Amino acid sequence: MDTHDIRFPTSRELDGSDAMNPDPDYSAAYVVLRTDSSDGLEGHGFTFTIGRGNDVQVAAIAALRPHLLGRNVAELCADPASLSRDLVGDSQLRWLGPEKGVMHMAIGAVVNAAWDLAAKRAGQPLWRLLAHADPVWLVSQVDFRYLADALTPEEALGLLREGRRGLAEREAALLERGYPGYTTSPGWLGYSDEKLTRLAKQAVADGFTQIKLKVGADLDDDLRRMRTARAAVGERVRIAVDANQRWNVGEAIEWTRALAGLNPYWIEEPTSPDDILGHAAVREGVAPVKVATGEHVQNRVVFKQLLQAGALDVLQIDAARVGGVNENLAILLLAAKFGVPVCPHAGGVGLCELVQHLSMFDYLALSGTTEDRVIEYVDHLHEHFTAPVVIRDGHYTAPLTPGFSATMHPASIAEYRYPDGTFWAADLAGRQ
Amino acid sequence: MDTHDIRFPTSRELDGSDAMNPDPDYSAAYVVLRTDSSDGLEGHGFTFTIGRGNDVQVAAIAALRPHLLGRNVAELCADPASLSRDLVGDSQLRWLGPEKGVMHMAIGAVVNAAWDLAAKRAGQPLWRLLAHADPVWLVSQVDFRYLADALTPEEALGLLREGRRGLAEREAALLERGYPGYTTSPGWLGYSDEKLTRLAKQAVADGFTQIKLKVGADLDDDLRRMRTARAAVGERVRIAVDANQRWNVGEAIEWTRALAGLNPYWIEEPTSPDDILGHAAVREGVAPVKVATGEHVQNRVVFKQLLQAGALDVLQIDAARVGGVNENLAILLLAAKFGVPVCPHAGGVGLCELVQHLSMFDYLALSGTTEDRVIEYVDHLHEHFTAPVVIRDGHYTAPLTPGFSATMHPASIAEYRYPDGTFWAADLAGRQ
Repeated sequence: MDTHDIRFPTSRELDGSDAMNPDPDYSAAYVVLRTDSSDGLEGHGFTFTIGRGNDVQVAAIAALRPHLLGRNVAELCADPASLSRDLVGDSQLRWLGPEKGVMHMAIGAVVNAAWDLAAKRAGQPLWRLLAHADPVWLVSQVDFRYLADALTPEEALGLLREGRRGLAEREAALLERGYPGYTTSPGWLGYSDEKLTRLAKQAVADGFTQIKLKVGADLDDDLRRMRTARAAVGERVRIAVDANQRWNVGEAIEWTRALAGLNPYWIEEPTSPDDILGHAAVREGVAPVKVATGEHVQNRVVFKQLLQAGALDVLQIDAARVGGVNENLAILLLAAKFGVPVCPHAGGVGLCELVQHLSMFDYLALSGTTEDRVIEYVDHLHEHFTAPVVIRDGHYTAPLTPGFSATMHPASIAEYRYPDGTFWAADLAGRQ
Repeated sequence: MDTHDIRFPTSRELDGSDAMNPDPDYSAAYVVLRTDSSDGLEGHGFTFTIGRGNDVQVAAIAALRPHLLGRNVAELCADPASLSRDLVGDSQLRWLGPEKGVMHMAIGAVVNAAWDLAAKRAGQPLWRLLAHADPVWLVSQVDFRYLADALTPEEALGLLREGRRGLAEREAALLERGYPGYTTSPGWLGYSDEKLTRLAKQAVADGFTQIKLKVGADLDDDLRRMRTARAAVGERVRIAVDANQRWNVGEAIEWTRALAGLNPYWIEEPTSPDDILGHAAVREGVAPVKVATGEHVQNRVVFKQLLQAGALDVLQIDAARVGGVNENLAILLLAAKFGVPVCPHAGGVGLCELVQHLSMFDYLALSGTTEDRVIEYVDHLHEHFTAPVVIRDGHYTAPLTPGFSATMHPASIAEYRYPDGTFWAADLAGRQ
């Protein structure tokens, strides 16, 4: 098991700037699982962070090493839940969460790396491995602790059995057309109106039917930028807005109502990701504008309650925030049970590469539809991955490379490892 | 700023064992703030953990170093919220939470160390510094973000102004009598019935009017242990039970009802600490048994909702889980607003030493009463602190040493630093 602290200097271009995150350096706490098999295959995974603290995240991943070393690879790949259970269940590490924050994201990185390895060994892209898996086995991959009041294993099995009907037709459609995306690239808070207009028009030309703007720093600016974007894209393209947790509940309602005349499609992260009751109040206060959240929702227990409380119109999974594929299966099943569409958070470093697999599985074998479902797309840093996402006419093309699309080029690791990669070594030397 | 990974080998005696934590090694990720003042005073703080991962917690504390170095000490001590705001508001570190788990506990350790330093420089125990502080200043120490729908600064100021009435009489009573405690020492899951009986009788003899048993591993065992404890302490001593998050919502209700005939006073942590709606359902299902939680509640936003949802009869703050004194002030104010008694979690390493200050402040200047309020007490590891708690007739004696009672003996640090302290170096050498 190898770990790498990889950081990209994105803050220098204000890429990724929003109301809460003015200067992110997009980073990955990266893990590679190696085996003694002659096939040479490795499992790759990572936690996305935005710079400082990436070293803490790497330390958390490294703390999981004793659970990995010496593990039987075939058994692990046949049952990744066995690893997930051991990691989440480590009674001492559990104190550091439980199931939230740095330690839980570390578990997610390692569990995702195990799934990457399993899919590579199966010679399948992860989405296809999951979509064709036995529903009974899929249910065995889910931890139902704390979920039973909302979803039982029996209900999950029923959803998965029902969800498979028509899989072959949908798989053909997916391979033909891809999965719809939307783009946040035009809407970062640090961009000028000219850049916003240019990128918004480009997004429509590229086939996207939804874009997203960051809001929440200044209402007059938001109104102007919203009008600018609307003028650029026309009435038929959806414009979502994203406050990145900036507001109290009351502020969220007032601000969103002030924007409502410009027809925002959803308001994303209007307040604290921990505030289930707050999201429910916001949703009631801003309808018909939809409420979306999830990129910072820590685990399945909070998603369960957001659904129970009727706090969400759109559920945004993140591939690298919760405890990995196993926990995201639970969350997709909860969303299906409650009939709420899943529109993943992506962007960052490699989040698009990962999460496309989960949405494609959801479409093929669970929700059965792409209606009102879109995967976020941000045009950053894909060049560092060996199998980057391919966007065609506003759609994510189904990846065919075996695995979870998590593998970074060795040259990128060598350049952007912090602080000893070639980029940072030169940069830090230049500052002295 | 110095950090230390300190671990005590408590797992060898099954001290601290419960249904989720069978073999904890009580540990502290410890921080010392030094200054260039000639007074030689230091600020001490720590996060409590139960062993593995303590190194991750130390790494998280170390990641905060740039916010500490070079800071003006007088300004910091006059306004610890300035530090708290900088740490919680670090936009890159925030991604690792926000305000939860490893990174947030690290912030708590450092913020608590700053309060320790402030109280030492003021020559006051922290409880007295807080109790006599200007209410306007206390309000300025609270971050109201995400709280406004439940508590405004104006309401907080009103509570604090009202809370001061009669302070002098209560302070005299506190100095005379102390603050009531209860003890968990008899009730660890790993103890035999004989040890339970002996320690329960001892607790009554020592003046405690409440004890606590760990439950949740096996119902028949729990019934037997509850009867054993009841026989030992009689009908007038309260017996609380603690499931340490073991159950689903439905199980929690069934199990607690099964114990209800033996009159448990409260059921603690019946399910996930993240499950606000679940706790509300449990409370409805198990009344008149009270529901208590909080030791793993990650921040003020979750406490706010537990109160809004009517999910708690007893609110259990922890001095070292949230973002330090500033956030615990917010939580105490929320509890006062909703009229819910605060009975702190303690034990571990140094948690009794810390949290007594917060309860004593609460009594003197906010809630104004000790009725139905008790601080947990566990008779472990106090000898490692320079100003350990003093229990007299079941009460915490008000500490008079300036500071937050967080300072550990240098000899204890030298012995139990992991892995290079004298105890661990010898232990690890012996295993090779």
